[in-house]
Amino acid sequence: MNLHDLTRELQRKNESKIVMLVADGLGGLPQQPGGLTELESAKTPNLDALAKKGTLGLSTPVLPGVTPGSGPGHLGLFGYDPLVYNIGRGVLEALGIDFELGPKDVAIRGNYCSLDEKGNISDRRAGRIGSDVGAKLCEKLDKIEIPGVEVFVRHVKEYRLVIVFRGEGLGGDVADTDPQRTGVAPLEPTAKAAGSEKTVEIAREFLKQAREVLKDDFPANFLTLRGIAKKPEIPTYEEVYGTRSAAIAVYPMYRGLARLVGMDVLDAGQTLDDQCNRLEAAWNDYDFFFMHFKYTDSTGEDGNFAKKVERIEELDAAVPRITALNPDVLIVTGDHSTPSMMKSHSWHPVPTLISADTCRYDACETFGESSCLKGGLGQFEAKYLMSLALAHAGRLEKYGA
Amino acid sequence: MNLHDLTRELQRKNESKIVMLVADGLGGLPQQPGGLTELESAKTPNLDALAKKGTLGLSTPVLPGVTPGSGPGHLGLFGYDPLVYNIGRGVLEALGIDFELGPKDVAIRGNYCSLDEKGNISDRRAGRIGSDVGAKLCEKLDKIEIPGVEVFVRHVKEYRLVIVFRGEGLGGDVADTDPQRTGVAPLEPTAKAAGSEKTVEIAREFLKQAREVLKDDFPANFLTLRGIAKKPEIPTYEEVYGTRSAAIAVYPMYRGLARLVGMDVLDAGQTLDDQCNRLEAAWNDYDFFFMHFKYTDSTGEDGNFAKKVERIEELDAAVPRITALNPDVLIVTGDHSTPSMMKSHSWHPVPTLISADTCRYDACETFGESSCLKGGLGQFEAKYLMSLALAHAGRLEKYGA
Repeated sequence: MNLHDLTRELQRKNESKIVMLVADGLGGLPQQPGGLTELESAKTPNLDALAKKGTLGLSTPVLPGVTPGSGPGHLGLFGYDPLVYNIGRGVLEALGIDFELGPKDVAIRGNYCSLDEKGNISDRRAGRIGSDVGAKLCEKLDKIEIPGVEVFVRHVKEYRLVIVFRGEGLGGDVADTDPQRTGVAPLEPTAKAAGSEKTVEIAREFLKQAREVLKDDFPANFLTLRGIAKKPEIPTYEEVYGTRSAAIAVYPMYRGLARLVGMDVLDAGQTLDDQCNRLEAAWNDYDFFFMHFKYTDSTGEDGNFAKKVERIEELDAAVPRITALNPDVLIVTGDHSTPSMMKSHSWHPVPTLISADTCRYDACETFGESSCLKGGLGQFEAKYLMSLALAHAGRLEKYGA
Repeated sequence: MNLHDLTRELQRKNESKIVMLVADGLGGLPQQPGGLTELESAKTPNLDALAKKGTLGLSTPVLPGVTPGSGPGHLGLFGYDPLVYNIGRGVLEALGIDFELGPKDVAIRGNYCSLDEKGNISDRRAGRIGSDVGAKLCEKLDKIEIPGVEVFVRHVKEYRLVIVFRGEGLGGDVADTDPQRTGVAPLEPTAKAAGSEKTVEIAREFLKQAREVLKDDFPANFLTLRGIAKKPEIPTYEEVYGTRSAAIAVYPMYRGLARLVGMDVLDAGQTLDDQCNRLEAAWNDYDFFFMHFKYTDSTGEDGNFAKKVERIEELDAAVPRITALNPDVLIVTGDHSTPSMMKSHSWHPVPTLISADTCRYDACETFGESSCLKGGLGQFEAKYLMSLALAHAGRLEKYGA
C-alpha cells in the first residue's frame, strides 16, 4: 500500500483551505562557512512569524545527493514519487510553452542544427539562431502533413522547438536522434521498446519532409529530436486527495506541471500581487491552492546572492495577503535548492514550513536552513508534504481501527 | 527506479577526487549516562576542523535496530542496499583470506569437528585445535580430487577453513551440514532450491573423501559445511558511479569486499602511514579511494574503551596527510558502531562527516555522536552516502528537467 492508496482511502472532505506557496529553488548556501544563506540573510518578519507558530523541517526532493529538475521537484511537492512518475524532456518542454498535451500525444523537444554538404552535423545548435528566425522556421514545419496523425510544431526559444504528434497507437519510447557530437550524421529514429514502432515511422517521415522544408535555411537546415515522450499517466489531485485544486503560477512550465496532476490552472497575471488577487478571487472555489514564485530560483541560477535575498523579501511581503484569508494550512517551501554560489539547482534539502493550528511547537523562531534543521518535521522526503498538509487540514481519516 | 538506476543515468565524469575513510566500528557509547563516547573522549583536532567546515550526520547501516556484520556494513557505505545484496558467509570467509572468487565458484565455510565412535558430533569445534594443526589438515584436504570440478581447501584460523568448488553449473543454495548441536550426526548436504543439485553431489563426495582423509585426526576427524554460497552478482563502481576506484585496506576481508564491487585493490602495507603513502602514490590514477582502518573495531570488540580512544587519535593524526592532497570530497565514517561497553558490533547509528566546498554549514564544531545528531545530514541510511559523495564531487547530473 503506497501513500496514494492511503490518501485515496482516508480522504475526507471538509471546508478547510490549504495554500502551498512554492518559492522555486528556495534553499541556499552561505557565502562562506559559518555565514548565512540567502534565506537567512533576508529580512522575513512575516515568514518568521509563521515559523514561530508553525513547524519547520528540511525536505529532500528525490533522494539524498540527487539534484532535481523542476519536474521531479514539483511532483515530489505534489506528493507524487518522482522516481515513479517520470516526465520526459519533450513533455516538460511542451508544458513550458503552455501546449496542452492529451493522451494520444507524443511530445518531442527539437533542436535546429546545421548540416554540412555531406549531411553531417556541423553545429548542434544551428549557430544559435535568434528567436525571430526560429519562430519562422517553426511556422514552415508546422505545415507538414503526415497521414494518420496530426503534427504540431511550436517555437520555444532560439534554436529550440517542440514537436507533437497526435494519433492512435503512438508509443513514447523512441531514442534521441541527436548524436551529441558534430562531424557525424543525425541518427535515425529507432524504437527503444515495443509499441513505439508507429512513432518511429512518423518521426522518420517528419524528418524526411523537414529536410526538404529546411534545405535552404542554413545554418538551420535540419533538426534533431530529443526527449521523445508521452505524458505519464498520473492520477489527479481530485482522485488521490479529494481536493478541488488550483494553480496560480506565472510561468508556463509550472502551470503545465499543475495541469498534469489535474489542477485547474488560473490566470495568475505577472506579479505576486496579481497572484494574490487571483487567490482572493478564487478562494471560495477551491480547497487547495498551489502558488508558484519563480525568482528565488532565477536569481540563484544567476549567482546573484543579493538579488535572491531581495526576491525572498518580496515573497515575504506577500505573505500577509495570504494569511489574511485565514488558510487552515499554509505551507512555504521550495521544489529544490538553488544556491547562488553554485549557480544551479542542487541536492541540498529544502527549508519547509507548515503553519496550522495543529502544529506541534518546535521552538524555531525564524525561517531559515539552520532553523529548519532543528524543526519538528525533521528531514523528510518531499513526497510526504501533501499527506501532512491534508492531516493538518483535517482531511485524512484514521488508518485502521 | 532505484538509486543505482539513477546514478547510472546521471553520472558525470570530472577530475574530482573522493576519499572515503572508514574507521571500522567507529560509533560507540559512553561508559555511563551523560558521559562521552570513545570518539567524543578522543582528542581529534583534525577531524574537528573538518567537522567545522563540513556537514555531519548519523548513518544507519541497514535499518534501525539492525546490527550489521562487516559485509552489509560496507556494502551500505558503498551504496549497495545491504537488504538487496546478500553476501553468504562462505563468500565472506573466502574474501577474508584474500581468496579470489570467480563466477563459477561456490564458497563454503568449514568447521573441523569431533565425531565419536557412533559418528555423532561430540565437539562442534574439534577441541579448538591450534592453527598449526588446522593448517596441516587443510593441506591434506586440498589434495581431494573430484571429477568435473576444482576443489580448493584453505586454512583460516584454528578449526576454521574455507572450501571452494569451481565448476560449471554449481548453484549456491545448499543447506548447512552443521546440526548446531552435539550428540547427533552431521547433516547430509541438501539443496534448498533447484539449480544446486550438482553442488549437493559434489559436497557429498567431498565429505565422503574427507571422512576418509581425516579418520585418524581426532579431535578433528571430520568437518561441517556452513554458509554455502556463490559470490553475488554486483554491478561495479565503474558501472554504477563511473569512478575509477581503489581500496587501500590492510585486512583481507575489506579488500575482498572492495573487490566485490569492482575496486582495484592496492597494496596497503601494514600501517596508516603505509596506507597514506599508497594514497599519495595512487592519487592520479583513481577518482575514488576507500581507506579502511580496522582497530577502532577490534579495540571496541575487546571492550577496551581507552584503547579505542587511542586508536581514534591515531586515525585523527593521519588526517592531515589526506587533506594535504586536497580531495574534493572527504568522508569519514564507520561501517557500524562497536561500543566497547558492548564488546560487539551494534545497531547504533554511525557518526559521519562529509567535507567539501558545497557543504551547507550546520554549526557543528566537533566530530562526535552528539554533534552528529545535530548535523546537517540528519539521520540517513548509509546507502545514500555515495550519492551524496558524488553530488559534492559534481559527479551527478540533474535528475529530470
